Amino acid sequence: MTKVIDFQTDPSRYRHWRIEYNGPVAQLIMDVDETAGLFDGYLLKLNSYDLGVDIELNDIVQRMRFEHPEVKVVVMQSGKDRVFCAGANIRMLGGAAHSHKVNFCKFTNETRNTYEAAEADSGQKYIAAIKGACAGGGYELALACNYLMLTDDSSSSVSLPEVPLLAVLPGTGGLTRVTDKRQVRRDLADVFCATEEGVRGKRARKWGLVDEVIPNSRFDATVSERAAEFAAASSKQDVDDGIVLKPLDRRISQTGDLSYSLVEVALDRSGGRVTITLKGPESAAATDMAAVQAEGDQTYLLRLAREFEDAILHLRANEAKLGVWVICTQGDPAEVAAHEAVMLDNRDHWLANEVLHYWKRVLKRLDVTSRSLVALVEHGSCYAGVLAELLWSVDRSYMMEDEFEGDNRPTAAIHMTRGNFGSYPMGNDLTRLQTRFLGHAEAVTNAEDVIGTPLEAERAEDLGLVTMILDDIDWEDEIRIFLEERSSFSPDAMTGMEANLRFAGPETMETRIFGRLTAWQNWIFNRPNAVGAEGALQRYGTGQRGQYDPERV
Amino acid sequence: MTKVIDFQTDPSRYRHWRIEYNGPVAQLIMDVDETAGLFDGYLLKLNSYDLGVDIELNDIVQRMRFEHPEVKVVVMQSGKDRVFCAGANIRMLGGAAHSHKVNFCKFTNETRNTYEAAEADSGQKYIAAIKGACAGGGYELALACNYLMLTDDSSSSVSLPEVPLLAVLPGTGGLTRVTDKRQVRRDLADVFCATEEGVRGKRARKWGLVDEVIPNSRFDATVSERAAEFAAASSKQDVDDGIVLKPLDRRISQTGDLSYSLVEVALDRSGGRVTITLKGPESAAATDMAAVQAEGDQTYLLRLAREFEDAILHLRANEAKLGVWVICTQGDPAEVAAHEAVMLDNRDHWLANEVLHYWKRVLKRLDVTSRSLVALVEHGSCYAGVLAELLWSVDRSYMMEDEFEGDNRPTAAIHMTRGNFGSYPMGNDLTRLQTRFLGHAEAVTNAEDVIGTPLEAERAEDLGLVTMILDDIDWEDEIRIFLEERSSFSPDAMTGMEANLRFAGPETMETRIFGRLTAWQNWIFNRPNAVGAEGALQRYGTGQRGQYDPERV
Repeated sequence: MTKVIDFQTDPSRYRHWRIEYNGPVAQLIMDVDETAGLFDGYLLKLNSYDLGVDIELNDIVQRMRFEHPEVKVVVMQSGKDRVFCAGANIRMLGGAAHSHKVNFCKFTNETRNTYEAAEADSGQKYIAAIKGACAGGGYELALACNYLMLTDDSSSSVSLPEVPLLAVLPGTGGLTRVTDKRQVRRDLADVFCATEEGVRGKRARKWGLVDEVIPNSRFDATVSERAAEFAAASSKQDVDDGIVLKPLDRRISQTGDLSYSLVEVALDRSGGRVTITLKGPESAAATDMAAVQAEGDQTYLLRLAREFEDAILHLRANEAKLGVWVICTQGDPAEVAAHEAVMLDNRDHWLANEVLHYWKRVLKRLDVTSRSLVALVEHGSCYAGVLAELLWSVDRSYMMEDEFEGDNRPTAAIHMTRGNFGSYPMGNDLTRLQTRFLGHAEAVTNAEDVIGTPLEAERAEDLGLVTMILDDIDWEDEIRIFLEERSSFSPDAMTGMEANLRFAGPETMETRIFGRLTAWQNWIFNRPNAVGAEGALQRYGTGQRGQYDPERV
Repeated sequence: MTKVIDFQTDPSRYRHWRIEYNGPVAQLIMDVDETAGLFDGYLLKLNSYDLGVDIELNDIVQRMRFEHPEVKVVVMQSGKDRVFCAGANIRMLGGAAHSHKVNFCKFTNETRNTYEAAEADSGQKYIAAIKGACAGGGYELALACNYLMLTDDSSSSVSLPEVPLLAVLPGTGGLTRVTDKRQVRRDLADVFCATEEGVRGKRARKWGLVDEVIPNSRFDATVSERAAEFAAASSKQDVDDGIVLKPLDRRISQTGDLSYSLVEVALDRSGGRVTITLKGPESAAATDMAAVQAEGDQTYLLRLAREFEDAILHLRANEAKLGVWVICTQGDPAEVAAHEAVMLDNRDHWLANEVLHYWKRVLKRLDVTSRSLVALVEHGSCYAGVLAELLWSVDRSYMMEDEFEGDNRPTAAIHMTRGNFGSYPMGNDLTRLQTRFLGHAEAVTNAEDVIGTPLEAERAEDLGLVTMILDDIDWEDEIRIFLEERSSFSPDAMTGMEANLRFAGPETMETRIFGRLTAWQNWIFNRPNAVGAEGALQRYGTGQRGQYDPERV
């Protein structure tokens, strides 16, 4: 699996999903083309999915919010008979490297979280209309919807058969959503997760696995009824026109460097690292949302978010050996703040709302990226508002202090905006500053008090906004030593350490999925009982069950 | 490492710790005998520890609470020059099986949690008086104390060098306590955890890694002063006489069965399971605490807790291939409730308080045990109050319904007591019933409404207190099929599934340590970068650093 995975797509290229827009209710139909897997060696039978299927779903969920703001309810359903979705493709999993499996689960989790949150963030509620088998990852697809309808016939059931069948966990949030979101009693959840064939009909409703069970003869009509009811009850504004998300302006060089209109990604393979530079705006901010909407997908903050997100996804999936990401910005911080201010001033406008939530999601992708992240606050940088969040998403930051010989750029300074105090919450529902200053609320207040004041190195350090400040004499050596040292550490230990340090304090379902469930799954994915020659994943489909070492650890 | 590990010890057998009792302040001195490791093949140099060292510490912490209730402050310190504690012994870890490493970390975590909670539970506050190197597990030993004092000299520092040095995580809560308890800023925590030599003096104080830094010349005097201050400020009652914890009455048969005065443990090696039976009281409950104290360690609930805890620890460490534990009780439920009532009526008596907190800890050990747990509610059983908690600690429960042919025992019934509504919180700070009925507070209220009423099968099922009820026709087959099926599943998948389902909803530092940190460590302990021939754990001490595969996952 060494081909480059591209996260960009558009409706003209979809192979696995159809989407029918018709006013406030959209029909989202999963109809996987079994011959169109992302890699060779497996068929995507029975609506099973691989990363390619999820890349399309991610694209749909994203376009729904920008291109189709008129949508209030999305009905997720199957285009095939007798099966809703069979889950992640097992042959694909069996053949995939550990790193691909983990990265695949991360991306699918992010997509699930995104449409799960679409109701609260954007007034787009997802319904799962389940006919036929809804198994494993298929049920996880449904679990992330906010209303689950199941038809009551002998072939329709929900199940999480991973543990008995494959010796791995339901890895896309299933265990966590069953207990935390659906609040299924834990002993019933134990029975459910240990039962290959799953649960049908009234029992599924009684245990809380679905919200409604409907006789087959009335199923389609009832789904339409519910969708119309939810749409009518929605408090979402009526919006007629969305904006179009056109293809990104992206070039990939022979050596793998990426260049977008506002993002540059420079690879250093021998150093095991990559430098990502985000640029400030080229032009002044629009003064009202009509003007922003006229700019469409070219409006600065949206364009930057799309390019940065694509770079994150590309590097995560395709450049696993570059373990350290160095993040830089260059541009005018006042301009960044001005572009953000239009959005903050107009949060009740659908497009400003979408742009701010989108940045929230992009920053969350960075938070859960298993690379060592460092930000450099160099002269000429533009860490203002939303871009200042980068400083508290990374593991460490270094800031230039005073003049550097031969450097005429404006002195490095951090610019707080009101956006830093609630617009971009982390997965733990705290702001990055609240997480950074856990238990020290006064430090958050101190940072809020200096909104609008450029904070040069000493002041930024006093306020606790950067890890270290360095002058011209120390900068180059210190950064070099840090980067070399970081690349010399065990990548596994780094991943584990960063996953623990990044999310301090309170937990949410989201952090539990990324922090707890993922870690257990990583472990299981490394154990012979799952992936060894006699393990369940390898034996799947051979008619033989896995052969297990019974030792408990 | 196949010898049987015994968790029972007493002061006459200590090799690694000394304890000096002198009124309200106890001196706890770590002075590890390097030749007295639990296994061959390593020396416990520089106050490094293995499981044997921790078994003694666990014994001390436990005896402190029952035998020395006069103690209000415990000063943990080193008996060696220039080193406080070098952490877990690396050669021991390098040579140990994965399951031993994981089990070792679990037990040490439990011990850390126990003395950390001793202040809140029993008014016994632990101070760490750190002179010399305090590294890795050594700093984790200190982190679980509630006041950390560091001497300010060139050889005294605190550090968590696991990641740079060993390519594993600080596995005994270090990462979590640094961010959540000490609330060290996460980027400083990143620097700290990536720095082999650690942090000294004022910087350690400034970053929040210790509470107080004291010049060497005044260190001992200041420690004594603080200890006296804390003792004087303590609200703990003055108690003169503790009770003595005498050796347990335990026999181990040739085949490995265990027999105590109140606990029977029957092994079924071919079935991969074990049956643990807890017996009800042989005699009526004492009517007041003077009488309970006169019974000393023979009082029913204390004796049962000690025996049950020993069985749990023995099975976890020595019988890893028995993956399913079947829990039974037999006795008079009214008598169990009567014994518990004396404790609940007298919670302000030090001994009642200790017995209740001890049961809380024993039940928590069960909660984090990586075995499939099932409770059978048979005729003649005594699931009342504290013993009813077992039903909600296990993964599933089965209950006998109606008469069974040839079975004259009293009909199976569950007995709720007020003890079930707050006396034995789980690690997530919820009661087991609150966790079971997450989001359904009315179900907890319904259970509270039937305190004192024996609840036979149908009623217990209606109240959601058991997973399944079975009559004489189905019982034997259903239980047999369940047990066979459970033993056929992958033990790793079971461990991961159970760890996720058992702790729903809110998290605490404790659940984050067991659920999140442990899972990441398990994963890392399975990766070649740590444990492979060229991994850091194997190469430690050879002068060569680990050789890492740079791929991030």
